[in-house]
Amino acid sequence: MTNDKQKDEKLPKVGRYDFIAEPFHCDFQNRMFMGHLGNAMLNAADFHSNERGYGMHYLNTIQKTWVLSRLAVEITDMPEAYDEFSIETWVDGTMRSFTSRNFAVVARDGKKVYGYGRSIWALIDTQTRRPADLQSIHDGLILEYIETEKACPIHNPGRVKIDKDATFVRSCDTYYNDIDVNGHVNSVKYIEHILDLFNLEWYRSNFLKRMEISYVAESHLGDRLNFYKQSNNDGEYCVSVTKGDQEEVEVVRCLLYFSNS
Amino acid sequence: MTNDKQKDEKLPKVGRYDFIAEPFHCDFQNRMFMGHLGNAMLNAADFHSNERGYGMHYLNTIQKTWVLSRLAVEITDMPEAYDEFSIETWVDGTMRSFTSRNFAVVARDGKKVYGYGRSIWALIDTQTRRPADLQSIHDGLILEYIETEKACPIHNPGRVKIDKDATFVRSCDTYYNDIDVNGHVNSVKYIEHILDLFNLEWYRSNFLKRMEISYVAESHLGDRLNFYKQSNNDGEYCVSVTKGDQEEVEVVRCLLYFSNS
Repeated sequence: MTNDKQKDEKLPKVGRYDFIAEPFHCDFQNRMFMGHLGNAMLNAADFHSNERGYGMHYLNTIQKTWVLSRLAVEITDMPEAYDEFSIETWVDGTMRSFTSRNFAVVARDGKKVYGYGRSIWALIDTQTRRPADLQSIHDGLILEYIETEKACPIHNPGRVKIDKDATFVRSCDTYYNDIDVNGHVNSVKYIEHILDLFNLEWYRSNFLKRMEISYVAESHLGDRLNFYKQSNNDGEYCVSVTKGDQEEVEVVRCLLYFSNS
Repeated sequence: MTNDKQKDEKLPKVGRYDFIAEPFHCDFQNRMFMGHLGNAMLNAADFHSNERGYGMHYLNTIQKTWVLSRLAVEITDMPEAYDEFSIETWVDGTMRSFTSRNFAVVARDGKKVYGYGRSIWALIDTQTRRPADLQSIHDGLILEYIETEKACPIHNPGRVKIDKDATFVRSCDTYYNDIDVNGHVNSVKYIEHILDLFNLEWYRSNFLKRMEISYVAESHLGDRLNFYKQSNNDGEYCVSVTKGDQEEVEVVRCLLYFSNS
């Protein structure tokens, strides 16, 4: 349903957005926190979809929203304080109510690739909270922007398995600063809480190479989050996050791969 | 000690830096979190001082650093998601090892002032952790950049008084994501923890008009932080943050003014 004017102005399928690794968004080793990189990716996705007419700005007017379902980030090198980088993002496919969106994190001068990301988003109806048809956005406008040629050389996020007897590490309460405009705990906050399960000594000699996170259910202000951790081998860890006191419901599941640094 | 080349290129005393209120940096009412605004101010201060030759980039080479001692932020209007704003910052005075730096938060199109900030920074020697002489930076280069004409119509941060019997609210542990490149708990994290002492119901009907925060001592990874709150009248609150279990040492003191919204 794009009219001629829209066609004339059609943006490229791949969007590119500039960021800087802010000094106070870097860890004790001067590397950008994974949570802040994740936040930059979510911003890029938001800018990209809004500019192309299928973002939250439009969805708000038709009682729909994007819900992040899965995110995988694989990093060979993490931006350091003051590094200027860009995030390229594009949608590489759709399936029923889902879209898959890729990311490349590159130096602004084009001389370096920091890493890549893959994500899965569900379109849902904000009233019923049920999956909605992608065709409901301007008669399937999003399909005009599918980019299948550009490489994203990392694996898709998969199903994360975790044992029932993973070790309970800690619980934490949720407060004002955890809650986003939808009243949910912000996606990035889970990443921060999960990475806080490892101490500085660990980060001194281990580099987070890949993170996969599945958002299973939503949590809200006042929910108590419980963190369970399981060490597989070769620097691989699974983390399960549940909410609740007596009856726990899983909200997030995560897989982390560390390499010796 | 500026040479002719530097003189030719001399930057204006007031620096101006552009930001956007990122959607995931906004609260449940779609207003930017005060912690993220504070972070933007610290970035502006950092960019401004680095560009003028007395920032951390240079100080790192002479074993000196800036330590934020006090910050006051007064807001009449908080940027909302996607608002484009600029932070103007300038140094308006020095005293011994201290500089006072002001901020104006304005809409990028110049049509609105969101608020102002005032801050006090100490120059210290990173080896002795003692105050250092401002003259030690390029023979007092900073004095060439003092701007006394530009208005900053809010009060200086003062001495925050708090009763010894302020109410203990909660303790929290510090983790990987709290720690900055100096190994200290990041200044902004205290702001977030302090504002987390109030619940969504409170924020629904109260607007944080002014915040004053004094950084009294540093805390490190693993330090347990304890929060004490005292309600004065007319929406004024004092918060004291201590570290330690048996013996507590005060690290931060804060004054908050809320107005009915």
